[in-house]
Parts: sequence; C-alpha cells; structure tokens
Amino acid sequence: MNTEETMLIQNDKLHEECGVFGFYDNDGFDVAHMTYFGLYALQHRGQESAGIAVVGENGEFNCYKNMGLVSDVFTESILKELKGNIAIGHVRDSTKGGSNRENSQPLATRYVKGTLALAYNGNLINSAKLREKFEKNGAIFHTTVDSEVIMYELAQERIKTHSIENAMLAAMNDLEGAYSVVLMSPRKLIGARDPHGFRPLCIGKMKNSYILSSETCALENLGAEFVRDVEPGEVVVIDKDGLRSLKSPRAQKRASICIFEHVYFARPDSEIQGASVYEMRKLMGRRLAKDFPVEADLVFGVPDSGLCAALGYAEESGIAYGDGFIKNRYIGRTFIQPTQEQREQAVNIKLNVVKKAVRGKRVVMVDDSIVRGTTCANIIKALKAAGALEVHLRISSPPFLWPCFFGTDVPSRDVLMAVKYSIEEMREKVGADSLGFLSVEAIEDIAKNMDCDYCDGCFTGKYPMDVPKISE
Amino acid sequence: MNTEETMLIQNDKLHEECGVFGFYDNDGFDVAHMTYFGLYALQHRGQESAGIAVVGENGEFNCYKNMGLVSDVFTESILKELKGNIAIGHVRDSTKGGSNRENSQPLATRYVKGTLALAYNGNLINSAKLREKFEKNGAIFHTTVDSEVIMYELAQERIKTHSIENAMLAAMNDLEGAYSVVLMSPRKLIGARDPHGFRPLCIGKMKNSYILSSETCALENLGAEFVRDVEPGEVVVIDKDGLRSLKSPRAQKRASICIFEHVYFARPDSEIQGASVYEMRKLMGRRLAKDFPVEADLVFGVPDSGLCAALGYAEESGIAYGDGFIKNRYIGRTFIQPTQEQREQAVNIKLNVVKKAVRGKRVVMVDDSIVRGTTCANIIKALKAAGALEVHLRISSPPFLWPCFFGTDVPSRDVLMAVKYSIEEMREKVGADSLGFLSVEAIEDIAKNMDCDYCDGCFTGKYPMDVPKISE
Amino acid sequence: MNTEETMLIQNDKLHEECGVFGFYDNDGFDVAHMTYFGLYALQHRGQESAGIAVVGENGEFNCYKNMGLVSDVFTESILKELKGNIAIGHVRDSTKGGSNRENSQPLATRYVKGTLALAYNGNLINSAKLREKFEKNGAIFHTTVDSEVIMYELAQERIKTHSIENAMLAAMNDLEGAYSVVLMSPRKLIGARDPHGFRPLCIGKMKNSYILSSETCALENLGAEFVRDVEPGEVVVIDKDGLRSLKSPRAQKRASICIFEHVYFARPDSEIQGASVYEMRKLMGRRLAKDFPVEADLVFGVPDSGLCAALGYAEESGIAYGDGFIKNRYIGRTFIQPTQEQREQAVNIKLNVVKKAVRGKRVVMVDDSIVRGTTCANIIKALKAAGALEVHLRISSPPFLWPCFFGTDVPSRDVLMAVKYSIEEMREKVGADSLGFLSVEAIEDIAKNMDCDYCDGCFTGKYPMDVPKISE
Amino acid sequence: MNTEETMLIQNDKLHEECGVFGFYDNDGFDVAHMTYFGLYALQHRGQESAGIAVVGENGEFNCYKNMGLVSDVFTESILKELKGNIAIGHVRDSTKGGSNRENSQPLATRYVKGTLALAYNGNLINSAKLREKFEKNGAIFHTTVDSEVIMYELAQERIKTHSIENAMLAAMNDLEGAYSVVLMSPRKLIGARDPHGFRPLCIGKMKNSYILSSETCALENLGAEFVRDVEPGEVVVIDKDGLRSLKSPRAQKRASICIFEHVYFARPDSEIQGASVYEMRKLMGRRLAKDFPVEADLVFGVPDSGLCAALGYAEESGIAYGDGFIKNRYIGRTFIQPTQEQREQAVNIKLNVVKKAVRGKRVVMVDDSIVRGTTCANIIKALKAAGALEVHLRISSPPFLWPCFFGTDVPSRDVLMAVKYSIEEMREKVGADSLGFLSVEAIEDIAKNMDCDYCDGCFTGKYPMDVPKISE
Repeated sequence: MNTEETMLIQNDKLHEECGVFGFYDNDGFDVAHMTYFGLYALQHRGQESAGIAVVGENGEFNCYKNMGLVSDVFTESILKELKGNIAIGHVRDSTKGGSNRENSQPLATRYVKGTLALAYNGNLINSAKLREKFEKNGAIFHTTVDSEVIMYELAQERIKTHSIENAMLAAMNDLEGAYSVVLMSPRKLIGARDPHGFRPLCIGKMKNSYILSSETCALENLGAEFVRDVEPGEVVVIDKDGLRSLKSPRAQKRASICIFEHVYFARPDSEIQGASVYEMRKLMGRRLAKDFPVEADLVFGVPDSGLCAALGYAEESGIAYGDGFIKNRYIGRTFIQPTQEQREQAVNIKLNVVKKAVRGKRVVMVDDSIVRGTTCANIIKALKAAGALEVHLRISSPPFLWPCFFGTDVPSRDVLMAVKYSIEEMREKVGADSLGFLSVEAIEDIAKNMDCDYCDGCFTGKYPMDVPKISE
Repeated sequence: MNTEETMLIQNDKLHEECGVFGFYDNDGFDVAHMTYFGLYALQHRGQESAGIAVVGENGEFNCYKNMGLVSDVFTESILKELKGNIAIGHVRDSTKGGSNRENSQPLATRYVKGTLALAYNGNLINSAKLREKFEKNGAIFHTTVDSEVIMYELAQERIKTHSIENAMLAAMNDLEGAYSVVLMSPRKLIGARDPHGFRPLCIGKMKNSYILSSETCALENLGAEFVRDVEPGEVVVIDKDGLRSLKSPRAQKRASICIFEHVYFARPDSEIQGASVYEMRKLMGRRLAKDFPVEADLVFGVPDSGLCAALGYAEESGIAYGDGFIKNRYIGRTFIQPTQEQREQAVNIKLNVVKKAVRGKRVVMVDDSIVRGTTCANIIKALKAAGALEVHLRISSPPFLWPCFFGTDVPSRDVLMAVKYSIEEMREKVGADSLGFLSVEAIEDIAKNMDCDYCDGCFTGKYPMDVPKISE
Repeated sequence: MNTEETMLIQNDKLHEECGVFGFYDNDGFDVAHMTYFGLYALQHRGQESAGIAVVGENGEFNCYKNMGLVSDVFTESILKELKGNIAIGHVRDSTKGGSNRENSQPLATRYVKGTLALAYNGNLINSAKLREKFEKNGAIFHTTVDSEVIMYELAQERIKTHSIENAMLAAMNDLEGAYSVVLMSPRKLIGARDPHGFRPLCIGKMKNSYILSSETCALENLGAEFVRDVEPGEVVVIDKDGLRSLKSPRAQKRASICIFEHVYFARPDSEIQGASVYEMRKLMGRRLAKDFPVEADLVFGVPDSGLCAALGYAEESGIAYGDGFIKNRYIGRTFIQPTQEQREQAVNIKLNVVKKAVRGKRVVMVDDSIVRGTTCANIIKALKAAGALEVHLRISSPPFLWPCFFGTDVPSRDVLMAVKYSIEEMREKVGADSLGFLSVEAIEDIAKNMDCDYCDGCFTGKYPMDVPKISE
Repeated sequence: MNTEETMLIQNDKLHEECGVFGFYDNDGFDVAHMTYFGLYALQHRGQESAGIAVVGENGEFNCYKNMGLVSDVFTESILKELKGNIAIGHVRDSTKGGSNRENSQPLATRYVKGTLALAYNGNLINSAKLREKFEKNGAIFHTTVDSEVIMYELAQERIKTHSIENAMLAAMNDLEGAYSVVLMSPRKLIGARDPHGFRPLCIGKMKNSYILSSETCALENLGAEFVRDVEPGEVVVIDKDGLRSLKSPRAQKRASICIFEHVYFARPDSEIQGASVYEMRKLMGRRLAKDFPVEADLVFGVPDSGLCAALGYAEESGIAYGDGFIKNRYIGRTFIQPTQEQREQAVNIKLNVVKKAVRGKRVVMVDDSIVRGTTCANIIKALKAAGALEVHLRISSPPFLWPCFFGTDVPSRDVLMAVKYSIEEMREKVGADSLGFLSVEAIEDIAKNMDCDYCDGCFTGKYPMDVPKISE
C-alpha cells in the first residue's frame, strides 16, 4: 500500500488535540457515567484515546485510560470500578507527543500533597524550554506531552503556595501558550484557561453539581444547564463550598478564541463564547454566497464539516440544497484502506457521490478548508465522473498560510496548498470551475457575533501573543 | 437500567436481515479485499456479523466470520489468508434465528459434491415446514437460520440433478418466500432471486470480473459497472465460460420489490430496480408536502433515514431546509446506554437538538416511519424543550398495519402504534402539532418510477403471494 | 523460522484426541462449574479447544466452546450463563478433522426430537463411508469430525426408535471403531462405549448426582466416588429415575482398552479398567530394569510422561533416582519458538538439563516412546554436552510399527523411526549408549493387572477388529 | 466465593519480586528475541507482568510491557518492532507497589541526558524517605514502585557526574536496601548490585555479546557462557569498548545473598554464588533426613519446590522416593477457583494425591517452607483421606519468624504460623504425625558451599544491615 498517499487522504483535515471534562457531584450522580456521557459528546475533539479519573471521599484515586473511542475503551464493569464524587475525563488526538498509551490522559501523579490528576487541551509554546529547565534539576519525564510539563510546574509551585489553585495561578506565569485545563485534587475540581483563552472551556450546572467541559454540547447531552465560559486567565475552584474564582494578573480582558473552533472543530450544537456554532457556520456560508455568487443548480457540503455552511450558501443564494455525497460511517477499529491501485478505480471508499443528485447539474460544493488539496481534488474528480457539469468550490475559511502554535496541527508551510499556489492555481489543481475562500474581513464581521476576540493567526500570521520565529 | 425501555428506543426501526456480495475474478483482483470493500458498502444492511468465504483454483474453501462490523471482524492478516479466485460475503442483522456466531454467514458446508458456501438475504415462509420434513428423514441442524434449510434443499436436489445451478432451480419449487442468494461452488459463483424478487440483487462487472451485490452502491464503491438486476426467479451462473442464466417456471414477470428498500433500507446512492433511492425518497418528501402542506419556518429530517425526504419536502414547499439534530456517530463496540433515570434528564445521547436552529420556529420534521412511536415522542419532546413553537411530523411511508413475511422485522401487530391508534391519537401521543403519513396511493404513484411491481403488504395487508394466516 | 523442524519437535508425541465429561445433577450442584473442574482435570487429553453444553429443566440448551485451554476459554461470567441441571463437556486435540472452531465440541444440533448435544472421544474406521452414505441422500456436513457422523446416525435411528438411548444402541450396528460418547438430551445424560471399549469411560457419583468421565482423576478432583467403568457396548442412561443400562448385541465380553492409555495418555492418578496408571507405569519401569539392566549412577525420566516409569526403574535397579531436567511450564498462549539457528545454540527452551545433576555421571533416561526420534536425539545431545558420561535410553513401550485406527495419531509408517531402522540403528541415531524397549511380552504380563483385554495394534499390527488395509 | 480463603491458599508461598535481564549485542543477534528467551527462563521470578525495552544504534528507545506471562505478552509482531542492539527485560510479581500496568517494568524515562531504561529486582528500605525528599523539591511520581525512586536518584546524580555509571555509583550512597539493577542508556548496558548483594545478578557471554541476568538458567537457555556474578557494590558497564567495572566504597567484601533464593526462589538448574541450586536443595533434604529421621515407606516432595529436597531426603534415608501428587499445570489466564463449599469436597483442584502411591503407606512429605500453614494442612488432610497411614512433614528451611526487608513478601508477623505457635502446635494444626524444620545451624553448614555470606533474617531476625524497627 502506498501509505504516504493514504496518510495524506486520511489526514487532510486539521486535528484538535483534545476535549476535557470534569464533574463535581453534590447530588449522588454516578460521576464516572456522567463523565462517560460527557466525553462521548466531546468525541469529535479526539478519537485516539480516552480516559477517566475519579477520586472518592476517602481521597483514593482511580484512573482508566486506553487507546480507542470512548465507547470502545469503557465497559460497564470498568465504569463501575470508577467510584467517587469527583471525576475528570479526556479525549485525545495524537497530533503531538506521539500516539501511545503513555501519552494518553488524564495524567494522574503523586506529588508532595498526595495525588493530582490533569486533563488538558492546548499547546505550550515554551514546553521544550520548561522541560529542559526541570531536567537540568534532575527531573525525569515518562511522557512526551505538555501535560507532564504542566504537572511539574504545579508540583513545583505547590511547594511555595498553600493551595493547588494558587499553584495553578502561579504556574500561569511560566506557561506560555494555549491551555484549557481540568484538574482534580482529592477535594477539588479546578478549571483553568490560559490568559488569552485560546481554547474553549465552560461551566455547567446540574442540580447542585458542577461540570467543566470543553464545549456546551456535553452539557446538553447531560441535560445540564450552561452557566458561563471560564474566562481567560481564570482559575475556577469547585469544592464543598461551591464555586469560586481566581484571576491571573496576566489575564487578558477578552478571550482570543481560536476562530477555527467555529469553522470546524466544535460541534454545531455547541455555543462557543456566546455564539452558536451552527449559526456561525451558516453565516459563513451566507457570506460566501454574497462574495462568490454563481449560477448553479445545486448546493451541498462535504460531510460533515461543510454541511452547515452549505445550508447558509443555499439559503442566501436561493439555489437548491441537496446531498452530494453518502458518507460511510461504519468505521470499526481497523478499517483496511484500499491500496493505491485499488483507489485509482474506486475513488473513495468512505465518501460516495450520489450520482442521481449531481448528474447533469452545475453544483456548488462547500468545504471548511483546504490543507493540501488532495482530498478535494479527488472528490471533484468523482463528481465530474458522476456527471456534474460544473463544480464550484466554496471554502468557509480563508486560505491557510501560517502555522498554528495553539493546539491544532496546521502542517508545515511547505505542504500548505495556499502557500505554494495562487487561488487560481489552486482552482486548477483541484479541478474546480471556480473557487472562493471566505475573506479575513468576512471572518472579522462574522466574529462580531461572539463575546470575545479571536485568533486567526493561521490565516494572517498575526497572533495575539509573541510566537517563535517562523521559518519561511 | 430499564433494559426494556432502552430496547424500545434502540430498536424502534425496522431491520433488514442481510446484505450479500459475490466476486468472480478473471483479472487477478484480490477477491477477499474486493469483497471486504463490497461488504463495507453494504454495512447498512446488517451490523451484527460479517463473513467472507473464498475458494481457490485448487477447490480449497476458506471462510472467516465473526460478530461485529466488517471493519472490526477483518484485519489485513485475516484477509491475506483468504486467497482464491471466487469469494462471497455477508453482513447480517439478527432479526431472526438468534444472535450468535453459529448463525452468521456465509454458511459453508460439505455435501455430496464437495463444498458449497451460501450467503442469503430474505425470509422463507415455509422454513419450519421444510425443516420438519428434513428432520423427519433424519436431518440435523446446527443453526436456526433459513440458510441451512436452503442448503439442505440444495443438497437434496443436487443428488437428482447434474449441476448446482439446476439444484438451485429445482429448490425454487420448494422454497416459499423471499430470498436473494449468492452461492459458491469450487468453480462457480451463482446468484439467485426468488420468483417474486422481494429482495434486491444486482450484477456488476469490473474489467472481465463479475460481481453480485445486494445493492449498486457496492459496485460504485469498487468502481465497477452496473450490468443489470438479477430477475425474479432467475439463476445466474458465473464460471470460466462467463455468465449465463436459467429461469424458474415459477418466475413472475415483474419483481415485487419490497417498497421499504426505497423508503428506508437501501443506501441513497443505490439504484434499486432502475430507480435512484435518493430520488425516490425526495419524491416521497415532495408528495408529503403536496398532501400535507403546513405553514412553517424550517424543514429537517431525522438523521439519517429522514434526510432525503426532508429535502424533497423543503423543495416542494419552499420552506427553508436545515439541520434540526446533531447525530453522534462515534459508536464503538460497547456503547453504554444511559439509565432510564439518566435519560429522563438528557433526552437522547445520540441525537442532540440544535437549539439555535429550532428555537422560536415552527418546524416540519420528516421521518421514514413510525413503529412504536417511542423514539418519535422523545424527539418531539426535545424539540419543544429546545423552543420549537410547533412540530409538524411527516412520515414518508404509510402507517404500519400488517406483518412482513419477507425479511424485515415489522414487530407483531400488538405493538404497532398504527394498529392501536387512529392517526389523530398517534399525533397526540407523539406530541406533534400535525401528522401526515404518505398514502398508499402516493406510494403507488411514486413506485411507477421503478421498472417493476412492489410489495407494500406491511401497509395494506395485501401480499404478492399467499402468506400464513395473520392472527388479528 | 524453520517451521517444519519446529513442528517435529513440538509434535514428537502422540496425541489423544479428546476427553469427555458429563454431569447429571440431583443435588443442586452448579453443573457448569462441576464440568469446568472435570474438564480441567482432563485437560491432558486435549489442549486445543474446550466446550461445555448445558440443558435446563425447561429443555433450553446452551453451549459455549472455543479454541484454548479450559482455563482460557471459560470465565466466571460465561459459566454463569450456562445454567441447567445436566451438562456435558469436551476437551480436544486436533489430530484429525482440522484445527478450528467449527470442529470443536460438544456438538449441539437440532433434530426431529428437539436438541441433542454430543461429546466424543475415539475414531471411526468407517466414517468416510457413512458420510458418503448420508451425503448421497442429501445430507450436509458443517464439520469434518466424526462427531457429526455419529449425530447423523443418531438422528436417523431416532426416527425409527422410541428413545435416544435406543437410537444410540441401533447406531452401534453401523459405527465401526473406537468411541466413548457422552450425550445430552433435554432430560437425559447418556454414556456409550463402542463394543470393543477402546477408549475409557467411567461412571462416578457425588451425593445423588451422576458423573460420566473419560478418567477417574476428574472424579477425584471433584471429590466424587468412582462407581464403575462403562462396559464395552454398553449404553448408560441417567435421568430422573436414576441410572439404567442397555447392552449392544455386538458388545464384546471384555474391553480391548488402548494400552497406550496406561503408557502415556492417562493421568497417573487415574485408574483405567481397575489398574492404577501410576502403578502400571512403575511396573513398566521395573520390567525395563529387569530386561535391560545397566551399570549407572542416576536414573531419571523425561518430564512428565517418563517420570513414573523412571521411578520404577530406579526402585528395581537400586540406582539413585534424580531430576535430569527442568521443564519450563509457563506456556502462555503464544509461545514463540526459537529459530533453527537460535536452537542450534540453545538446545531446548522448554527442557533444560540440570548440569550439576548429570555431570560426570552415567545416566539412565526413561521415556514413554519414540516416534520420530528427533526430540530424543536433541535431549541426549544436551545431556552429553552437560557432561553426562553415558546415556542409557529406556523406553516404556515397544517400538511403534503400525498405525492406530482407534483415536491416536501414530503418524504414517514412513516417518516412524522403528519402521525405518533396527534398534541398534535407532540407538546410534539418537546418540544413546544403550537402548531398550519394553517388549510386547512384557506388556502382556503387566496388562494382567487390568480387568480387561487390550489393544496393542500399534506395536503388533494385530487389532481386536478388522481394520482397513495398511499400505506397507 | 470466599475470596479471602482462596487468597490464602493461592498466596501461601513467598513471592520474589522480579527477574531482570540485559543483552548487549556485538554479533548481530536479535536482542528482543534473546531477551524474550531470557525472560522466559526467568519467568518463575515473576508472572504478573513482563516487559522488554530496546535501544537502536540511532539512540531510539522502544519499550513494550503488559500484564501477563512472557509468552502471553509478546507476539512475533511485537518482537519485530523491538529492534536495536541493546535490550533489557523484566518479569514482575506485584508484592509491592500495586498490581497494574503503570507499575510494570522496564521503566523508560527521559532525563537531562536523553532516555534511560531500568529493570530492577529488590526492595529499598528508604524509598519512602527518598520519595518524600524528591517531592519536597517538586517532583512528581507516576508509579508507586521503587524503580521510579532509583530513576530520580540517577537523574539527580547524573547532573553532577559525567556518566550514567558514575551516577549509579553515586546513587549507591543514598539507596538503602536490596537492588539488582539493569540499566540501558543509548550506548550502554549497565548492571549494578547493592553493596550487600542481597539479590543475584550474573554476567554471561555469547560469542562477543554480553548478557546480564538474575539467574544462570537464562544463560543456559540461550547457550551462553557464564562469566561471573556481579559483585556486591559493583557497577558493570558494557559498551562498544567491552566490559569494565566500578566499585562503590560501600561495597561489602562478600555478598549477603538471600538464602531463600536457594531454598525456593531460584530455578534448580541455576547456580547462585558458585553453588548449584539443585545440589543445595538436595543437601537440605539430606540434612533433614539426618536431623529428623523417621521410619517410613515413601518420601515425596510437594511440587515443585519440595521435589529436590525430597530427593535428598530419600537418598540419605534410604526410603523409597515416589510421587505423592499430580500437579495440574494447565494454568490459563483466568483459572476459576472452586468456592469454599466446592473445595470442602474436592480438596485441591491443582494438586491431586496419587491414591495408589500413598494408600497404606507411612509417608515423608518435604516442602520448602510454612507461611500460614493453610495449604499444608489441606494437603495432609487429603493424603490421610487417600489412605496414608502416617504423614511426616519435613521443611527444608527454618521457621519464618521475622519480616524480610529485601525483596520478598514474608507477610506480617501476626499471620506467620511459626510466630503464633510452637513446633508441636504447628504439627498438630497441620495434622502431621511429625514435623521437622531445617535448623539455622544446618543452613549455616550448607551455605558454606557458596562463595559468599548470606542473609537469613527472616529466620533469625538478624540482618546484614540496619533495618527499620520491627513492631512485635
């Protein structure tokens, strides 16, 4: 098998690194099950590994994690073992740190004050530097993930402070980058968000119990009520006395949420920083229809990420909305990829064109982004083979031109299609009849629906904080 | 956990029993991989077990089957063991015969002429009678599935005839009911369809190699060309001399295809008896819009089976089409259901309402059918809780009133909602503001797009052949 | 890896095909657990697959079987599912019929009178003929094992008789060869032994409950009392009325038990036909010492089958008994064999010489038999390398010269060392300083301790019944 | 199930904590396979988990470990992934630190100088103190095992020294207790033994490649040559320049090897500190025969640990040696224990008395030790039930009276039978007709066969170094 090619096709989407979840029970809920359902709703943020850690009233920790989907990793009998009144959970993609069991989370370690467990979403800019600092003092690292660096920071700061939440606050002075963290000590559930608030983290409530979650969809899933987002630079502490808050002096006034959460990462039924992801995507599609109108017979999205924007495009343009593709969703543990030779015949085993829908039609296809352009070109080829007369490609985000330092895996610039080619060249390469990207200005207009600022560094090269030098 | 309730919710859809696939290689294709990809495309027809049998030029059979999805059951190393130039494959739901490994297919047995393997989709009306007949002559049965009865028929007829295809033809005199069968002898791939042609079966070609498949979507997946449907009462033989055909004297002129293949079972990108499933579903939606118009702000389908009809409704009515739900598709091997208590809070873990889309709106929700009504009621409750002002339910098939004898698991009449209640009562029970079912006449009109007759016995109680007496 | 060579080394022992067990409860015992412990004690009779079938008072059968050891196949949760008041069990080696799940037992099938399960140890001489007869009447076979042939016989006879035990009796007229069978119908546990009684089968009692078992060691394991052996040609029926017996007119007066049960197959703590296996093996060793005396410093056996005979040799000869080898017994599921190259250095990963015990000594090594001689030669080479001055090999059975038709896998004559070479040539080939086999006469003398005749056809070519022509 | 009782029976033997192994290749051997075979030979030192770490010429580490036997944990495909020219391996029992994957070894961590892997056998007296020291400086611990404490020591010392071997030497100043350690850096294989040399560790050679191993039996297994034992307080470094040695100033002149290695832990075909384990055990048996003679008909050992001593007893006494028991060795992954009720009937599922051997006999039964006495009493009861007239129990070690601080799990004093009862009371409790323990003086005499001192603190309460205060 031509593995490299397969990889391109499989990976030609950005990956979020993680989803985090925490539950502090005051009502007799089964915290492990609640966390299980929470993680299940956050599964789109990471499908590689899943884990849950709990702590009981006696302070005893218990953690189970493994490679696989939430619903593959956990069984009833495993969940039954995870008894406690606080739980945190994690789902992960392996964009950084290597794909193996050691690197899965939550990370549970013993330190001077007992046991501490951590689940984390984000990316530290200075983790190598911090790691080096610790190692020079004799530290050992079992994993290659940032979480362990944060753990060390917490352990070091905890010696100097009188509580874990203050240790977290102090650690914020050293940690540079994006991090939404959920922490669990024997008696506390703690949430923290970096001073710029790159990654989402929200607070929910269910009767008298508290929830922390990467996205609101997990709250919906549980029938919990949304309280508010954790603020940038805020440390939220939940214990027997309820919820209280600390704020880092480094905290920015407004969060710089990653705009790609709205474009692609988050689930459409979530609300991120006050804005519905579903609505935001439809707005993106509407704007595309305004900025890049075209005469066509049918609009459809590339499942699943292009669907909402396609709806918006159809509504604004008045062109009929339809389904261009059937996505095969039966993805077991070990799907066998067709070989290159096999694929040359059968375009795509997971995405089939609905011939009858596109034959003889001029179609508008909406997708969320173009990374390398490979998949896109294959799909358009298949549409034309199925008889589509014209394929007009609309992308609901600006072209990727710059790296991301804050938790997504935008690949190096030399493979980004938009770095190498002009828009017209891209159109030609992917075989579209026309191509339109959402503009940076359009993003700016749409982002006004949120209650915060945003980071669009991957499109503009301008980041809310200093970043390492980018080799051109 | 209130298991019964959970069962209701999980099972409140009909199940097709099986998908079948066969590959006769003349070009050096890897038949096991081809069958794997074929079954992968037919996975929607059965998710309980999967199996592949191959036969090599030396006549050696090899069969592997297990419980689980195609992509869970097979690994590269298993596929590598399955060498040969003919292969047949099967995916199964356990609506009849019990859910266990013994009952999974293909069924490979030894008989007077060596080895024979069979994959089957359908339901025999007289299997108990045939079974009894054989047993009275001293036969033993290892399984509880019809396939073994068919095998016995073939073994018995093979003694009296000079070829397996003639044995199949002779067996057609005894077998009553629905069966689309794929057979493999050491040198032949055989396809057969019952004289009424209840279940689909089509012929494909890929270079010089032949394919048999329940649906055309598997041909598309492989880049193969659609040749034609197997005709009712036809036995198709593929061997080194190419393809030839035999016809049973019992063969009906036109197939009586199960109309529910178009309503729900088949994949939208398949064509069944000359009609696109996608188009047929859209026509059903359009007709619903004509017959049951309503003033509303939004139309959406219940994923996935209601989506195409919803598109048709939207198009015809001019009401905006949208997404009302997010379906969580990360379904691993052992998804843990919420308990009744847990579910009373969180409506549905797998289907979340997109609040922002429905809040303050009058919505039309399109679904393919109502069996017990339980799921439907829950969903409407969730929509209202999310702020939908009105929920107008449209069903793209007539009410289920009668049992199915031909391979789907319409439950007994006493649990069918439409048997127990009037339409108005059903509307009230499910909590909809209005309710419209596609009429039997509408089905008749739409079915004209096919090149055959159809069976709608589950709606009308009129079947294309004699059926057992139905206890009212 | 040189697989062939590895196979020789692994397989250079004969294999018994099976162990059978049955339990009829009258006291409230957990029949599945009892059968589990029974099979565990019979594990030496077959390590490839294990299975248990149970039937409850309502007549419902339940069967679980899989590849692997008893203690690998069954878990508490599986045993808990196997509820009933009758159970039968089986352990198997795959000497015939192919090594796969389909061929594992018990075999549970449906026939004219409901369900019937069977566990079987032995070998039919005329199974091909019977199979052919059935197939010519249209029968189908799912497996390649004799058990299915016996099942067919039973099903056919059952039509003509009024009970399953009479069907078994009638089947005895057709079945030629060795078979010890345990049967389970909804209300009866039945044991049967072929008219010559080649394979052992005994009756035990535990409070008011009955047991059938291949060997008495399983009775000991359970704390049950030994009642008696099932007689040749006897059918024993256990039901609510207790135990009763039927006898075939073909029944021989005295059993012709396979003498190799005493030499090698049975467990030393079993009693077979009134004689202790432990004592019989010691007698064999004693006789070897009388017939083949030698001056030496140490006697030891090849673990485990040579140990008892070595004890006898030591006792009779007065030479010190010791341990020559350490056998590594940690045999997990997937032990990786060393390659040929690796083995050329490290003689044997599973059998290590105790250097200190043999260095500078003249040793007598006792083994139960020589098949191909390969292992034996390797072991002697290792002993010499460890410093043994002389190695005198004593074999507690006569040379293998003829095939076995009754359930053991004596390989074809062309690989039997004793067929190809004289005793002196064998001695030279294996590198021993002297070599003595137990004589056929000695066997005759020792066998007098049993309450029956015996079969030693593999040594003499004379069998208690007609056998197929042997190609020289 | 009465779990507690079951535990007693299962655990009524001491457990060694670990076996370690290392391989430095200079000849092109496959280091992972070599380590696999080495660990397989050391399996008796730990059956709970197994692991192998390798490092390639490029410095890349790879480690695989899991719960289970060596032959369960590793498959060919896993071994193939473990490519390199240095390897270390580990087998473990979970007597301390908890039984889970996190605590399995080798432990591979990153530190200031790259990667370091460690496999360890022993027990630190001051690990809690060291752990506390590190934690007070902000360290975090992922595991609860001593190995991680040693890792921290090494990481801390490595900062101050110029090589890992010097770091190991420096660490010896802080580490108190027993430790035989195998270390692997990108270019070196290092072995170290604590200054008292409690646990064995030896050096082997195979062509030009070097081996480190807990016992010599692993060398035998590979066909490697024994070079010498690692000395107490010695650090042995193997790299491209061959083998060199450093010595701690704390090194004792003679090793204080744990005498229980000879009594029970080590494999009989190993040589520990110049003495054959097989011979030592026979000497213990001989001495028992001299000190506790008895008139009897049969001597046998409790398999497997009592067998060698029983041979010695038989030789010295002239009483016939035999087998009293059959040990069922088919121990799969999940052997199901009989319940208390079940066990009351069937004495012991894994150890069956050979009735014919003991009936009507006065027997001497030799075992290695008595911990709680439970198993012993059960066995004697079974022997008597089988008809043994007298049972004379001989124990090849002195009574356990004191705790072990150096790597074995002698339980707390309140459960030790010898602490609670006099010898005569013990005899009565276990139901023996006479009882003799090897005396401390006898141990002293026999130990002279070794080239070192020894620790018998568990018998005498006198240890070679200061130990924590023992609560009486």
